[in-house]
Amino acid sequence: MLVIITYDVSTISAAGRKRLRRVAKVCESIGQRVQNSVFECQVNQMQLEELERKLLAEIHEKEDSLRLYRLTEPVELHIKEYGNFRAVDFEGALVL
Amino acid sequence: MLVIITYDVSTISAAGRKRLRRVAKVCESIGQRVQNSVFECQVNQMQLEELERKLLAEIHEKEDSLRLYRLTEPVELHIKEYGNFRAVDFEGALVL
Repeated sequence: MLVIITYDVSTISAAGRKRLRRVAKVCESIGQRVQNSVFECQVNQMQLEELERKLLAEIHEKEDSLRLYRLTEPVELHIKEYGNFRAVDFEGALVL
Repeated sequence: MLVIITYDVSTISAAGRKRLRRVAKVCESIGQRVQNSVFECQVNQMQLEELERKLLAEIHEKEDSLRLYRLTEPVELHIKEYGNFRAVDFEGALVL
């Protein structure tokens, strides 16, 4: 299944930037970064559970926001994309 | 149907910040902002077409990235949310 992961963290603090890097690393280990804080991950049920467990270990629930959206197959009927696939320098954005 | 809209724009330039504000305004007129650049919009087919038309009029396809994900009903089976619903001061973030 394809799961869309969106993540919000304040990157004003060094701790926030570190969390964002760690969350991105977890997501990138199994998925594709498509926007600064949006990842598309093709996973099976076991992988999804492991991914959620890893993400929940990284985020601070009081400060951060994590959302997972599961798309129905065929996913190409449920996704539309416009513009630049990589609109920003993600690594640059992380150290702003 | 529920459509998830994610948007990336560089907010380093004043023009980028202005585009982000205008995109947010379009989305908020019909949906709910759930993260800094993620919106959930409950729309019918006509509203979706109008929304897409308005968004495409605002973004710069060379610089920005816009993605729309359509969820299948019942959407509560396809969404998981963790952490703070509003992780950041959205208005503050727009003028960073």
